[in-house]
Amino acid sequence: MTGEFELIARHFARPAQSAQVSIGIGDDAAALIPSAGATLLVTTDTLVAGRHFRSDVPAEALGWKAAMVNLSDLAAMGATPGWLTLAMTLPEADDNWVAAFAEGFRAAAQSVGAELVGGDMTRGPLTIGVTALGETLDAPLRRCAAQPGDELWLTGCTGEAAAALAALSEALPVDERLLQRLDRPTARCAAGRAARGLAHAAIDVSDGLLADLEHMLKASAVGAQLRADALNATPAMQVLASALSASPDPWIWTGGDDYELLVAVPPARSQTLVSIWAEQGLSPVHIGRVVDGEGLSWQGDAPAVDPVSSGFRHF
Amino acid sequence: MTGEFELIARHFARPAQSAQVSIGIGDDAAALIPSAGATLLVTTDTLVAGRHFRSDVPAEALGWKAAMVNLSDLAAMGATPGWLTLAMTLPEADDNWVAAFAEGFRAAAQSVGAELVGGDMTRGPLTIGVTALGETLDAPLRRCAAQPGDELWLTGCTGEAAAALAALSEALPVDERLLQRLDRPTARCAAGRAARGLAHAAIDVSDGLLADLEHMLKASAVGAQLRADALNATPAMQVLASALSASPDPWIWTGGDDYELLVAVPPARSQTLVSIWAEQGLSPVHIGRVVDGEGLSWQGDAPAVDPVSSGFRHF
Repeated sequence: MTGEFELIARHFARPAQSAQVSIGIGDDAAALIPSAGATLLVTTDTLVAGRHFRSDVPAEALGWKAAMVNLSDLAAMGATPGWLTLAMTLPEADDNWVAAFAEGFRAAAQSVGAELVGGDMTRGPLTIGVTALGETLDAPLRRCAAQPGDELWLTGCTGEAAAALAALSEALPVDERLLQRLDRPTARCAAGRAARGLAHAAIDVSDGLLADLEHMLKASAVGAQLRADALNATPAMQVLASALSASPDPWIWTGGDDYELLVAVPPARSQTLVSIWAEQGLSPVHIGRVVDGEGLSWQGDAPAVDPVSSGFRHF
Repeated sequence: MTGEFELIARHFARPAQSAQVSIGIGDDAAALIPSAGATLLVTTDTLVAGRHFRSDVPAEALGWKAAMVNLSDLAAMGATPGWLTLAMTLPEADDNWVAAFAEGFRAAAQSVGAELVGGDMTRGPLTIGVTALGETLDAPLRRCAAQPGDELWLTGCTGEAAAALAALSEALPVDERLLQRLDRPTARCAAGRAARGLAHAAIDVSDGLLADLEHMLKASAVGAQLRADALNATPAMQVLASALSASPDPWIWTGGDDYELLVAVPPARSQTLVSIWAEQGLSPVHIGRVVDGEGLSWQGDAPAVDPVSSGFRHF
């Protein structure tokens, strides 16, 4: 029987990469040296088997995604990711599974310059809890400062992850690109940093575009007019939609698991931001604009989705 | 159906208490202003129903304990607690249960000057994940710097929580003080801060005294000689042990859930530390001393416990 401490030592404990980590894995707590004058950003998200991921998802992909969904929250604040802690609850201590999970987690963290500094491991139902910490020297980007007149931009298209999930749940073959979008999302950290100082507000799209837009609008006490034709199904989504005799619109507008950033940026600064994002290899999408009042209106025919019931419900 | 966001808003979102919290609950991440020059301490622990707590534990006690077990890790580093995040996975959204849990959690945090700044809530098997953050302006206390000749001191006696658990598992009536020790532990934050600069090493006793001592000894590459008569059963423990025809020794030496601090302190400084601890209302216990070599030896008759299999196993 492999115990908690052996598993952690074997798969997770590594020499600290950053000089800002003065105590890493193995003591009662990790010790970090924040940058002078920095604001610290902290976010926590839990992934539960059967609810946030299918139980047979490859361990490496799950490790990657568990890190990325938290890093995405830091990205939305415009923060530079720094450190992660990991609380794993596992039904059994499968050494190979843990090794692959750790590899995916570490790869995701390294891809944005972050590292694992602590955590724990417990026997129980498969649940992955991650806390991510980051820093910013300027004021963090918030979701509550969108202003009427702002343009609404996404760092990329939405709906591919939800399409992959739909295919999996119908036991249909899944296009590889769609599956990558579901299993291996990329936190838009550089895009979030670029948006800091340019955008008025930002949020990451995890629960579905309309749901997360609604969070931003409510927090900012504004409404939005959306361009119905801004987001279109990719060819793979169209093929799948035909096979399912379904519309791709719910995937796009309410699907979730996209991990793109949604920002509200004043028109005078939007092209600057879009240029930077394009240089980062992103394909920004202009989905509408912020208006006075509340709620949504549509330019063009509203998609056939139910915004009231939209959004991934964790409960 | 009460959703995640409503539950969080109703029971957890409160105006920030500390000026160091610039963004609290409700954005993608919390924003904290670390003290200038401080080292940040971060620790994560998860409580799983049926493994770390009985499923029928009162919600208020569970909330209290979930916060305290993490604050105890900060205490062991000599840190001043600052902030907590909470990741709850719940089988159902029981409003009264969540309200009581939140009250207990908040009370524990407030008792040490910490506050909840973020988290999430998900449907799933009952699991409570907490990340605690604290600060220290001096070097944190570690577990790896115990030196031969150091005295080993505890902030208080061990075994009462394990005795309570034994009574509960045998469906015997539980003495109220024992139950309080199990359900409402107190993180020794002030004691840990006092030990910083006086003790060479510290660890919190959560998995059982011998197991956590072993962690300290191994990390410090030293051994220990323990005083077999240092720790005795309280009257309530003696009554229970008689009823169960059991020895209280395993509760004391290997039981766990005590959340006392164990420190290794040089003899020239031990009385200073013990005096401070006594002023804090604690009843320090001198359990032995650090020696060259490895492993344990006993002064007096070794208690009838098995150090090899001792310690709470999370796996």
